[in-house]
Amino acid sequence: MTFSISAHDPQSKARTGILTTDHGPIQTPIFMPVGTAGTVKAVHQRELEQDIKAEIILGNTYHLYLRPGLDVLSKAGGLHRFNGWNHPILTDSGGYQVYSLSNTRKIQEEGVTFKSHIDGSKHQFTPENVMDIQRTIGADIIMAFDECTPYPCDYSYARRSMEMTHRWLDRCIDRFDSTEGHYGYRQFLFPIVQGSTYPDLRKQSAEVIASKERTGNAIGGLAVGEPAEEMYASIALVNEILPADKPRYLMGVGTPANILEAIALGVDMFDCVMPTRNARHGILFTTEGVINIKNEKWSRDFSPVDPGLEGYASQFYTKAYLRHLIKAEELLAAQIASIHNLTFYLWLVRQAREHIAAGDYVSWKNEMVVKLMQRL
Amino acid sequence: MTFSISAHDPQSKARTGILTTDHGPIQTPIFMPVGTAGTVKAVHQRELEQDIKAEIILGNTYHLYLRPGLDVLSKAGGLHRFNGWNHPILTDSGGYQVYSLSNTRKIQEEGVTFKSHIDGSKHQFTPENVMDIQRTIGADIIMAFDECTPYPCDYSYARRSMEMTHRWLDRCIDRFDSTEGHYGYRQFLFPIVQGSTYPDLRKQSAEVIASKERTGNAIGGLAVGEPAEEMYASIALVNEILPADKPRYLMGVGTPANILEAIALGVDMFDCVMPTRNARHGILFTTEGVINIKNEKWSRDFSPVDPGLEGYASQFYTKAYLRHLIKAEELLAAQIASIHNLTFYLWLVRQAREHIAAGDYVSWKNEMVVKLMQRL
Ligand SMILES: [Zn+2]
Ligand SMILES: [Zn+2]
Repeated sequence: MTFSISAHDPQSKARTGILTTDHGPIQTPIFMPVGTAGTVKAVHQRELEQDIKAEIILGNTYHLYLRPGLDVLSKAGGLHRFNGWNHPILTDSGGYQVYSLSNTRKIQEEGVTFKSHIDGSKHQFTPENVMDIQRTIGADIIMAFDECTPYPCDYSYARRSMEMTHRWLDRCIDRFDSTEGHYGYRQFLFPIVQGSTYPDLRKQSAEVIASKERTGNAIGGLAVGEPAEEMYASIALVNEILPADKPRYLMGVGTPANILEAIALGVDMFDCVMPTRNARHGILFTTEGVINIKNEKWSRDFSPVDPGLEGYASQFYTKAYLRHLIKAEELLAAQIASIHNLTFYLWLVRQAREHIAAGDYVSWKNEMVVKLMQRL
Repeated sequence: MTFSISAHDPQSKARTGILTTDHGPIQTPIFMPVGTAGTVKAVHQRELEQDIKAEIILGNTYHLYLRPGLDVLSKAGGLHRFNGWNHPILTDSGGYQVYSLSNTRKIQEEGVTFKSHIDGSKHQFTPENVMDIQRTIGADIIMAFDECTPYPCDYSYARRSMEMTHRWLDRCIDRFDSTEGHYGYRQFLFPIVQGSTYPDLRKQSAEVIASKERTGNAIGGLAVGEPAEEMYASIALVNEILPADKPRYLMGVGTPANILEAIALGVDMFDCVMPTRNARHGILFTTEGVINIKNEKWSRDFSPVDPGLEGYASQFYTKAYLRHLIKAEELLAAQIASIHNLTFYLWLVRQAREHIAAGDYVSWKNEMVVKLMQRL
């Protein structure tokens, strides 16, 4: 995996580059659609490629491990072969879902025991087996097993949790470096900075993570309920320490404004369920602002979903038709809105790349964060 | 609207032809995907056109009248403009849904009063307003307002109902012929043969319907629970009477075998919710037979959904992946299975047309009805 930076914005830490994997290149900054169970909800694989122009998608280790399970994924030849997505894939470590979805989970030094939300069966994730599981899923980028602390989180818990995450990281690295990929292409491990919103912990964690000298680094434990300003402050502090010549991935973020602000702070990679989840509830991100398509005001608006955005879902369908579909609880509503929102998110990072290359990123970003977050 | 027959099968009543509407031609025999609320469930419009190769779709008057309602449809410029399907559309009369969906309905000579299944509001359908409603929806082919009797149905009810359907037909024709389309293209009214499974009633109804000399004719009240042999006998009897130079539409039918048998009896047009409804429950119609994709036996089958059928959904995705999606209750499962099943249905009628033209329809059909209905 190589990461080459092609342009730096003169007024911010924003940069644009290319991250190359054995499944092809990723232009950064990039947004990665979330494909929880090996599918980006309501979106066909060719739509991801041709309409949305996604370059990399996420898979969730917790979901894929439970269903279809490692035996099916292994027999398929890995997730790329299983779902037909022949571009890069990143998997999370499963930790976040264990903490938020499973019925009863117990976090100990050894790892986490939990019960499946599907059938109540008992399982354990450890730093070692989570590396093995992600090897078997076959992601190009594999995430370290960490504990993502909630917000708010008291200082002593945040510190103890961070220290365990660091010890887990050493176990992840030992296991990862002593094993190989199963399918003939290379995989890469990204460690994760934690430390809640405490500057000294974030600084300490970023130093530990940077010292591991992995191919790329991630920032976790943000966008969990803290004020946006605290999130930006943490990112700025961490990015001072994480090596500038390696990609930085901000996990689980966020709104269009969050993404543009974090790009200005030097972040290169993003993922979030927001574009697809909001789509299913009729919330559209558009080039003019946010639309709740369920509102009566759109019932006779026969203009395209987003006249400012190229692509089938945004151009072919009208607001009135999409409103009708969501009111009638038709599956096509989720399909159109999901393609549209993801097309918008990928358009947004493409625009960001262009403005970084042009050197006017900050002034463009300042205009856009206001425009994109207004309610239409 | 013109109907030109291009070939007759020498061993059966099957024929192939072209029905021309102001929204383009329809090759017959044809299967019409059902687009209940202005959307074929889980299928994008471009998928209907490019993957499924649909030539005409259905809309349901009852659903469209209640939601989005006539004001929205009228302001959009009709259903074609509203949903972006720029090929022929047929609407049913709303009667069937009123009888099966609405809470309380009362059938009287004047028409039918019913309560909306959405909000309980009270409405009336009459032969006259159902013509007006379909004028406003803007279908190319409009169906007469009839009563579809259940099965079984005692003789005296079937006779009285049929006679009322005939009186309603005269009122439909009066209204239809004294009004015009709203959107600049022509609309055509198809009357409907009723008479339950009683040969004398079916004969009498077919004679009345034939005497109206409309552009096309329909057979209703079948596939409502009667044995297939009774259905085929009714079709054969009715088709002896309905004019041979006009298209015959068998409403609400059916399985692949039903369709092939009815084509042999001289039917030209079909619609059914089966391919899309079954798709959502994981039942696939394939070129080798019927598959319940939820079965464990498909969990490690990495062959395409249907190796014998061209098209994205059938070729790109594997059985194991589709099984995973439906077990995980992912929206993409319904999307893939719906495109696949409809692609299969349209392939089936295309194959039928080719075998009619080749003159070997009956031997091909006899082989296919056995093969297509076996459970894999
Ligand atoms: Zn998020
Ligand atoms: Zn049917």
